[in-house]
Amino acid sequence: MTFPNQPSFKTLQDLSKNPIDLTKEENFTDSRIEKMQLKACGFTLLYGSERVTEEVLTSLYSLAEESNALEKMKQMQEGKVINKIEGYPSEKRSVLHTAMRDFFKEQHEEEAAKEAREFAYKEVEKLKAFLEKIGDQYTDIVQIGIGGSDLGPRAIYFALEAFNTSGRNAHFVSNVDPDDATCVLNKLDLKKTLFVIVSKSGTTLETLTNESFVRDYLEKKGLNPLDHILSVTGKSSPMDDPSKYKASFYMRDYVGGRYSVTSMVGCVALGFCIGMKHLLSFLEGASIMDKHALNAPLKENMPLLSALLGIWNRNFLNLPTTAIIPYSQALHRFTAHLQQCDMESNGKQINKKGEFVDHETGPIIWGEPGTNGQHSFYQLIHQGTTTVPMEFMGFKESQYKNDLVVKDSTSQEKLLANLFAQSIALATGQKSDNPNKTFLGNRPNRVLIAKTLDPKTMGAILSYYENKVAFQGFIWDINSFDQEGVQLGKVLANKIIDLFIEKRTQKKAEPFHLATSYLKALEEL
Amino acid sequence: MTFPNQPSFKTLQDLSKNPIDLTKEENFTDSRIEKMQLKACGFTLLYGSERVTEEVLTSLYSLAEESNALEKMKQMQEGKVINKIEGYPSEKRSVLHTAMRDFFKEQHEEEAAKEAREFAYKEVEKLKAFLEKIGDQYTDIVQIGIGGSDLGPRAIYFALEAFNTSGRNAHFVSNVDPDDATCVLNKLDLKKTLFVIVSKSGTTLETLTNESFVRDYLEKKGLNPLDHILSVTGKSSPMDDPSKYKASFYMRDYVGGRYSVTSMVGCVALGFCIGMKHLLSFLEGASIMDKHALNAPLKENMPLLSALLGIWNRNFLNLPTTAIIPYSQALHRFTAHLQQCDMESNGKQINKKGEFVDHETGPIIWGEPGTNGQHSFYQLIHQGTTTVPMEFMGFKESQYKNDLVVKDSTSQEKLLANLFAQSIALATGQKSDNPNKTFLGNRPNRVLIAKTLDPKTMGAILSYYENKVAFQGFIWDINSFDQEGVQLGKVLANKIIDLFIEKRTQKKAEPFHLATSYLKALEEL
Repeated sequence: MTFPNQPSFKTLQDLSKNPIDLTKEENFTDSRIEKMQLKACGFTLLYGSERVTEEVLTSLYSLAEESNALEKMKQMQEGKVINKIEGYPSEKRSVLHTAMRDFFKEQHEEEAAKEAREFAYKEVEKLKAFLEKIGDQYTDIVQIGIGGSDLGPRAIYFALEAFNTSGRNAHFVSNVDPDDATCVLNKLDLKKTLFVIVSKSGTTLETLTNESFVRDYLEKKGLNPLDHILSVTGKSSPMDDPSKYKASFYMRDYVGGRYSVTSMVGCVALGFCIGMKHLLSFLEGASIMDKHALNAPLKENMPLLSALLGIWNRNFLNLPTTAIIPYSQALHRFTAHLQQCDMESNGKQINKKGEFVDHETGPIIWGEPGTNGQHSFYQLIHQGTTTVPMEFMGFKESQYKNDLVVKDSTSQEKLLANLFAQSIALATGQKSDNPNKTFLGNRPNRVLIAKTLDPKTMGAILSYYENKVAFQGFIWDINSFDQEGVQLGKVLANKIIDLFIEKRTQKKAEPFHLATSYLKALEEL
Repeated sequence: MTFPNQPSFKTLQDLSKNPIDLTKEENFTDSRIEKMQLKACGFTLLYGSERVTEEVLTSLYSLAEESNALEKMKQMQEGKVINKIEGYPSEKRSVLHTAMRDFFKEQHEEEAAKEAREFAYKEVEKLKAFLEKIGDQYTDIVQIGIGGSDLGPRAIYFALEAFNTSGRNAHFVSNVDPDDATCVLNKLDLKKTLFVIVSKSGTTLETLTNESFVRDYLEKKGLNPLDHILSVTGKSSPMDDPSKYKASFYMRDYVGGRYSVTSMVGCVALGFCIGMKHLLSFLEGASIMDKHALNAPLKENMPLLSALLGIWNRNFLNLPTTAIIPYSQALHRFTAHLQQCDMESNGKQINKKGEFVDHETGPIIWGEPGTNGQHSFYQLIHQGTTTVPMEFMGFKESQYKNDLVVKDSTSQEKLLANLFAQSIALATGQKSDNPNKTFLGNRPNRVLIAKTLDPKTMGAILSYYENKVAFQGFIWDINSFDQEGVQLGKVLANKIIDLFIEKRTQKKAEPFHLATSYLKALEEL
C-alpha cells in the first residue's frame, strides 16, 4: 500500500483543511503544553506548539501502524536487507549503523546484527590499543574525508570539544578546493600531527587528492608519511595498505556515509581527542536511543513522534522546509550534519517498488544555532510569507559550567529564556493595529530539552535524528539508504576534468559540447 | 502600483505556465549558454541554465522598469529616507551602507551621502592611525557581536584569511550561550589579544553579557581591560566611554546591522588582520559594484539581473528556497551571512504602504560550499520532490596558488569541473529505464565566475548580493531595511528572564502562564 493510499492519509488530509489555531488563547494553554510532552532517555519533547490535536495524533499513529514503521525499524536493526528497490538493479544491503554501538544492554543476537557488532567491537578495541601505544606523541589530528566522512565527525567533535583531553585538537579538510588543505596545514606543527584519511571505497576523488596533498607536505618538511597517516576504509580497499599507513581501521558497506559517525569514521578522531571513556559514553547514548526507537510502543516512541510531526508539517500542512535550531553553540555544525543525514536519505522521487511518488518526500533541512539565528533569519520566520517548521533543542546546564550573572540572570538562563520565548511567540503571534507589528503566529515548532550536552546525551540526540529520518522513510516507503542522485554530477565532472587535462597535456578527451561553452567563459575572464 | 498589479506581472504569470524545457537538447545549447552571459566588474554571470527565454527576460526587465527599480537604487545611494512604512509609525531613515565605501571614483555629492562618506572616511583614518600606534603588541583579535555584527565580519574574515598579516588571527564570540565565550577564550594568549565589542545601541543583551564575561576573564588573569577592549558603537551610546575602552569607533543608524560589514563593524577586525592596503582594496571592490548597480542600464545591470531571475523563480515558478553554493572553501560562512542579509531584509509580510502582500516575498536562503554539498544534500537537489534554485560561485584560480597535479589534473580544475558539471546536470537531467537513475532536470541555476577571490573581488561579491537583495525589495515594494519581526521574541524573552530571576532571588516577576509550563518541564529533567 503506497503512502497516499493508506486509510489514515485521507483522514489527515481532511483534518489539515482546518488545523488548530494556536493564536487563540483557549487553544494554546498551559494544560496543552503540559499534556503534549513525551519523556524518554532523559529527554523531554514539548510539542504543544505544533499544529496538532489529539485527533490528528491518533491518525498519525494509525499512519505509522498502517506502514509497519515499528516492524521496519526492527528489520533494520536486525540486519535484514532493506537497502534495495524492488524490480530494478539497485544496492542490496543491510543497514547496520546501529550495530556500530550495540555494545551495551539488550544486544541484538540475530546473525547479521551480531556479526556486525562483533566486527565493530574489534575495531573499537584496536583503536583503544592504538591510542595507548601512541601515548603523547601527537597533539593534533586532521580528518580528511568528505560528506559523511566529514560532516558527522566534525559536528560531534565541536559538540564535545569541552570534553577534549587537554592539548588535543582535531581539524578537518574536506573540499577538493586546494585552499582548504593549505589553510588548515599552515596552522599545524606537522611533527605532532596525525592524519586520518577516510574513504570506504578508497577511491573518493576529493579525499585521495587531499591525501596526496598531505603526503607532499609531510615529505617537503622531511617527515615520513608512514609515521603520520592512518586510514579508515573497507578491508582490502586500495587504502588498506600497511606500507602506506601507520594503521588502518575498517568499515563495512552496511554503514552508509551519513550514518557512519559511530563507526571508525568518527571514532578515530573523536577517541584521540576525548579519550575512550567519553567515546564509549557517546556510543552508549546512541545505543540507548536505538533501543528506545526499537522497543518503545507507538505512542511513547520519541523519534517516531518526531517523524510523524514532520510528516504532518510536510505532507498535510505543505511546508517545504524544516529549520533545526540548537540553542547551544557547541552544536553549531550539527544542523549541517543533519542536512546530509536527512536530505540525502529522504530526498527521493521513487518508492521502494520503483514507482515515482505523487507526494512530497524529505524536506529541505537548514538552520544555525540560537540565539544567533534570532539576529539573522528569524525576521522571515516570524513575518515572512513561507512558514518554516522549527525543531528547537536546549539544555538546562551549560557544558563548561562557567557562567556569570549579568543583570541578575546567568547566560544559560538568558539562552533558555530566548528558546522558550521563541516557541511561544511563533505559536501565539501578536495582534496589533500596526501591520508591521502584527505577528500572524501559527508557526509550528517543537522543543527537545535535556539536562546537559555531555557525550551520552550527544549520542542519544544523534540516534534520535537518525531514527527519525529512518521512520519517515519507512512511512513514505522510500529507500532512505541509497544515493543514486549524486551519480550524474560525478560522471559529468569526470568528463570536464578530461577537458582540462586535454588543454594542458593534449591528451585527447571525449567531446562535451555544453561544457566547452562554460570553459570558454572561464577562459575569457 | 503594487507588484501583482504591474502590467508585466500578468504576462509573466502566463509565461510561467509553460517554462522552457532545458532537458530538450534543442533548447539547452552552446549558443544559449554563450548568449546568456552578462559581464561586469570582472565577473561573468552565466544564466543559460535558468528557465528563462528572451520573452521572459523582456517581461522581467519591464517589471523592473514599472517598479522604478533603478530610480529607487539611486534614491538609496543618495541618502533619501527610504527606510519607512507610509501611514504607520515606523523607522524613518536613510540607508547608506554604500557610503561606507564611497571613497573612490564617482563619489556621491548629494548632501546626506556626502556627509555619511566623510563620517566613514574619518573612521577609516582613525583605524589606520590606531593600527599604526599599536604596532605588534597584539596577535589576536576577538569580535564580540551578534547578527550583523558577527555574520558578515566572520564571513569576510574567513574569505580573506589567505591575506592575513603573518601571525595575526581573528576569533568570534556571538552566542549568549556561555560555552561559546569559554571555548574561544580558553584557546587564547589574553596578553596579546584585543577584543572588539560591537553594538550600535550599546544595549544588545548577548553582546553586553559576553563583554562582562571577557572583562571578568581579563581581570582574573591580572590584565587591565582598558588595554584590551575596543568598542564599535553609536556616538554617545553607553559604549562610547574612554574610561572603559582603549578606543571607540563609530557607526550611524543609517547602516543596518546586516549591511554593516564595510563600516567599522567589519573593518576593525579585518583591518587588524589583513592590513589597511587589503582593507581598502576590499572597500574599493564593493564601491565599484555599487556604482555598477547604480549606473548600468537595465539590461546590463548584474545585481538587477540576479534579482529578476530570483523573482522569476520565487513568484512565477513558485520555488520557496534558494541555495547559494560557493565552490570555494574560503566562502564557507558567506551563505550564513547572506541568509541574514536576504531573509531579514525581504522576509516581510507588508508592502511600503503597510498593506499585507498577496504574493511571496523573500525566499529561504541556505547552502554550504561545493564540492562538500555534493556529498551532502545534492541527492535532494537532483531527485527530491521540491525544486531548489541554485546560485553557484566559482573562481578560475585558487587563493594560495598552492596546488598539486593528481591523476593529471589540479585540485582547482577538479573543483571547477564539478561546478560546471552540476550546472549542466541540474538543467539537462538524464533519461533512464531505471527510475532511480532518472534525473528529471529543469533545476534552475546560475553561475557567477571571477578570476580569483582577492579582497577586491570579495568586496564586489558582497555588494552584488547586497544590491540584489535591495533590488528585489524595490520590485516587491517592501521595506528591506527594518526588522520588526524580531521584536516579539525579545519582549517575551525578557519576561522569561524575569521568571528565572524570580526563582533565584525572589524578586517578583510579572506572571507569564505559558512560559511557566515550559520552565516546569525544564525543572523536571
